[in-house]
Amino acid sequence: MTGQTAPTSASDLADLYGPVAGDLPQVEGMLLGLAKVEFPWLRRMLEATLGGGGKRMRPAIVLLAGRLGDYDLERLVPMATSVELLHTATLIHDDVIDAAPERRGRPTAAALFNNASSVMLGDYMFAHAAEFVARTGNIRVIRNFAETLRVMANGELVQDMSAYEYSEDVQRYLDRIAGKTASLFATAAEGGAIVAGAPETAVEPMRRYGLQLGMAFQIVDDILDFSATSEELGKPSGSDLLAGTVTLPTLLYMARSPEDNPVKRAFEGTRRTANLQKAVKEIRTSDLLDESMITARRFAESARQQLAALPAGDVRQTLDSLVDYVLERRS
Amino acid sequence: MTGQTAPTSASDLADLYGPVAGDLPQVEGMLLGLAKVEFPWLRRMLEATLGGGGKRMRPAIVLLAGRLGDYDLERLVPMATSVELLHTATLIHDDVIDAAPERRGRPTAAALFNNASSVMLGDYMFAHAAEFVARTGNIRVIRNFAETLRVMANGELVQDMSAYEYSEDVQRYLDRIAGKTASLFATAAEGGAIVAGAPETAVEPMRRYGLQLGMAFQIVDDILDFSATSEELGKPSGSDLLAGTVTLPTLLYMARSPEDNPVKRAFEGTRRTANLQKAVKEIRTSDLLDESMITARRFAESARQQLAALPAGDVRQTLDSLVDYVLERRS
Repeated sequence: MTGQTAPTSASDLADLYGPVAGDLPQVEGMLLGLAKVEFPWLRRMLEATLGGGGKRMRPAIVLLAGRLGDYDLERLVPMATSVELLHTATLIHDDVIDAAPERRGRPTAAALFNNASSVMLGDYMFAHAAEFVARTGNIRVIRNFAETLRVMANGELVQDMSAYEYSEDVQRYLDRIAGKTASLFATAAEGGAIVAGAPETAVEPMRRYGLQLGMAFQIVDDILDFSATSEELGKPSGSDLLAGTVTLPTLLYMARSPEDNPVKRAFEGTRRTANLQKAVKEIRTSDLLDESMITARRFAESARQQLAALPAGDVRQTLDSLVDYVLERRS
Repeated sequence: MTGQTAPTSASDLADLYGPVAGDLPQVEGMLLGLAKVEFPWLRRMLEATLGGGGKRMRPAIVLLAGRLGDYDLERLVPMATSVELLHTATLIHDDVIDAAPERRGRPTAAALFNNASSVMLGDYMFAHAAEFVARTGNIRVIRNFAETLRVMANGELVQDMSAYEYSEDVQRYLDRIAGKTASLFATAAEGGAIVAGAPETAVEPMRRYGLQLGMAFQIVDDILDFSATSEELGKPSGSDLLAGTVTLPTLLYMARSPEDNPVKRAFEGTRRTANLQKAVKEIRTSDLLDESMITARRFAESARQQLAALPAGDVRQTLDSLVDYVLERRS
């Protein structure tokens, strides 16, 4: 359930994360260190949810941001581990909340382990995330982290998100993904910079970079839920909508005939499954996914613009390539 | 589900908490402030779980400890609120984990709101607890808090707990309640002292006081689960054991005939309910509850001894009276 795609090879990661790729195994090691617990059932759950694979994009962003200052892995690795743990814990609890049987082709923790164990497992990770971030010894980072927790739990508005005017429905969707996804990307990018003592002229651009990149990342995720094949996703196309979750493509679809459309009919209780399946099919074969990509690109370009404030070099280059990767990925 | 007994009157609290009773409403206000959220369903859940009643013993201990230094409510009230939130969040998630329909005569959050909402509600409280403790701006307190979270999630051994030799089973029970209950009492007592900048000669005794008092508190809780009437508890006597949870009285009961006893038979699958009911009845009418009280008193007296390190006065007096209260309470 870790929201991971298929295991990523070391050379892929080297391409993607350049100057910090070689240090990511330390994060991996710290994550797996958590699984060294006495209770076999907890160990198995931790191994299943924290073990191998996954792109570790959030930890990589922490380390890249750390390259903008004093690159001290003693403090950066716990910070990076903390961010990944918080991410994983959130996914695990979300799976209980959504009662999702699969995520990205793997059974969810809730399906594998039952609700009770998933709640414990998520709490265990939250607790360790808090401890790892406390280890940085940096009160500003800790406060940001706590604030991020709160924003993620509230699903509340993150300010300064977009200068563009969106419809009320779309704005509400953007608020939601800002709280759910972008806030943690922002904390990763800003936190790495702060922990490394990077200059203030780099800290705020990094926060904005993370926020905007996170927005693009989640919008692309929501597009991929429609556009990718079942094989790539490991679940039926349109599974979000089939489970009742409305994302950007669906909002744009509904906006084209707001008075009457299959999604509205389904939510009003009329032939729910058939209507949702019809909507998924129509969204997949329409130009709505391209239209959604325009919004994703808008956030991605805004992320890219923040990088102008950073010194030129391989770190900035890698952060720039990450923007492309987020837009171009297929799973 | 808040683990609260019936609402406690202001004069009871004044008796119990002396010099800090008048400030507890500030904690109450901060807790209820959390319920001022946009979503009606979340507001209702927060009001139901954080609202009125409850003795607020943990926040009171934070404030009492704060009286040993610079009694700055700007920092102590968030600390006290944080501790109570963490306590409440833990109870809410425990209710999901245990699938308990009632706690202390009130329906549990999980029974009222369903698992998904309870998980979200608990996470919301954890997040705010983290934010409140970060507000103290004290890195040592924050680290302790994170460590407590971890200990509570691990249910692991807390060192220095007892000089007395217990059987292996009892030792395991004591470890469990140390993680579950006493660690948070310790954090409350130590954290209040640290936030107030109390002298180091007071900080460590307060931590030990909290730890030992928390042990006594939980043992008494486990005794009351047998001894109190259904009316006092709002649930059947022996409900822990009936739900399969083994506490000190049951351990002592089993130790008297380790080869064969109704609990063992029940757990081996033989006439489970009938055997557990038989065990509850026998424990209630035996001297096992008095024997369990000996252990509770041992921890309570150890808590009391720590107070010798504190300056004489109304704070020390109140902390001393709390020890009596924990032993004498009937619900």
